[in-house]
Amino acid sequence: MEMRRQITGFSNPTVKALRQLRDKKHRKREGKFLAEGLRLLTDARECGHIPEVLVLATTRDPHPLLAELEAEVAAAGGEIIETAPDILSKITGKDNPQAVAGVFAEFDTSLASLDRSAADIWLVGQAVRDPGNLGTMLRTGDAIGAGGLILIDDCADPFSVEAVRASMGAVFTQTIAQASWDEFHPWLRSGAGQLVAASLRDAQPYRSAPYTAPCFVMVGNESRGLPEDYELACDLRVTMPMKGRADSLNAAVAAAVLGYEVLAGL
Amino acid sequence: MEMRRQITGFSNPTVKALRQLRDKKHRKREGKFLAEGLRLLTDARECGHIPEVLVLATTRDPHPLLAELEAEVAAAGGEIIETAPDILSKITGKDNPQAVAGVFAEFDTSLASLDRSAADIWLVGQAVRDPGNLGTMLRTGDAIGAGGLILIDDCADPFSVEAVRASMGAVFTQTIAQASWDEFHPWLRSGAGQLVAASLRDAQPYRSAPYTAPCFVMVGNESRGLPEDYELACDLRVTMPMKGRADSLNAAVAAAVLGYEVLAGL
Repeated sequence: MEMRRQITGFSNPTVKALRQLRDKKHRKREGKFLAEGLRLLTDARECGHIPEVLVLATTRDPHPLLAELEAEVAAAGGEIIETAPDILSKITGKDNPQAVAGVFAEFDTSLASLDRSAADIWLVGQAVRDPGNLGTMLRTGDAIGAGGLILIDDCADPFSVEAVRASMGAVFTQTIAQASWDEFHPWLRSGAGQLVAASLRDAQPYRSAPYTAPCFVMVGNESRGLPEDYELACDLRVTMPMKGRADSLNAAVAAAVLGYEVLAGL
Repeated sequence: MEMRRQITGFSNPTVKALRQLRDKKHRKREGKFLAEGLRLLTDARECGHIPEVLVLATTRDPHPLLAELEAEVAAAGGEIIETAPDILSKITGKDNPQAVAGVFAEFDTSLASLDRSAADIWLVGQAVRDPGNLGTMLRTGDAIGAGGLILIDDCADPFSVEAVRASMGAVFTQTIAQASWDEFHPWLRSGAGQLVAASLRDAQPYRSAPYTAPCFVMVGNESRGLPEDYELACDLRVTMPMKGRADSLNAAVAAAVLGYEVLAGL
């Protein structure tokens, strides 16, 4: 199609601008983020998210879904760029780049816009620092039918390339909210909601614990876990077996094991 | 102590040799791997693994466990090196290095040396490519009381810095075996063992499925899942709810959700 713009140089300013979206400061200033891969972009499209910029590798194979995507981007007035795979690799920071990437506007992540009645389960991450863990929590949330992921305090950026990649498209299907504890806690108590966390304090076994919807399943920071007062603010504290030397699970794993148990128990 | 060797230069050959342990080729040639952090090295020590080389940051705080570790390394004839934190950072590839790192001899990972009667649960990863996922599976294995992790076909290296880090010490507590499917499958059938995988083929719900010990919980490659013939070779295929758009979980998450269910069901 004639509307595709060809970019051949690494030093092209558009390449530089796209590359900078790997950097949080630039993402926040621009209000945009990058997502790669036809599957992910198709998920996005089916959830109503059309990229503002579509970047195609010259080496891509033709695909009907890609043609549909390109047509929709063009129809929405978006920009379509065609470039060499090594330039696409430089943009996404991935050695073996996908054949397509898109630039999306970041979503509204205010707690006020979250409708808690939209789902029975919500995941809550407190100071989760690893973008891969955040993305994996989004992916798990999608699988268990959660409404979304609420990020409390100083979490990694859910719109980082790493988080988007690990989410496997769930960044587009899950509602994402960001808030401090001092915003989240009063919001939670302003309506129905059971706050649940894994804990060693006055806790009951996680299997067959009395989960109720909407259930907010909270996991804490990778190194420090949850602050004590956050745990004490929970309606339900549960323990998972720890048969070995370790006293904790990976944050995304804990969210998943607990999330699947809540799904079975509701 | 006078036996500590001071290293002050980035170009020191010992620094170079230690740094090269981040590279798989060098690890395999040397038969050694790196692990960082006092907690991890203490776990190792309590499991009977003393580092051959102990690297201490000059900026470390004194700690009784560190003193004990240092004494044991010295008693075992190991080498003790003291160096600046930025050199330690260069060795481990981590921006904020731990105050201590150790070099360990790699373990025997032959299937023949694995005693299946030592535990009721074993995790099996097939072509798991992400070292973080491997390390997380080791960590989960420790938590559910698994005997260890069996790596089938072309997996990431469990002795990579990333896998060791993600294992949170479980690399020292879990037995690790590496084998091809053509080695693993006859070995499995040469004794008691139920092979279980998540699957969409002729599968039953994962909750309350008839798990029996020793139960081998297998997950497949991050992109492709398990080959069809591997799934068909399973004694039990189970499904986990997938309420959203995604049709799979992160490999380490799938292993954990299934592993915890097996633990509850045995």
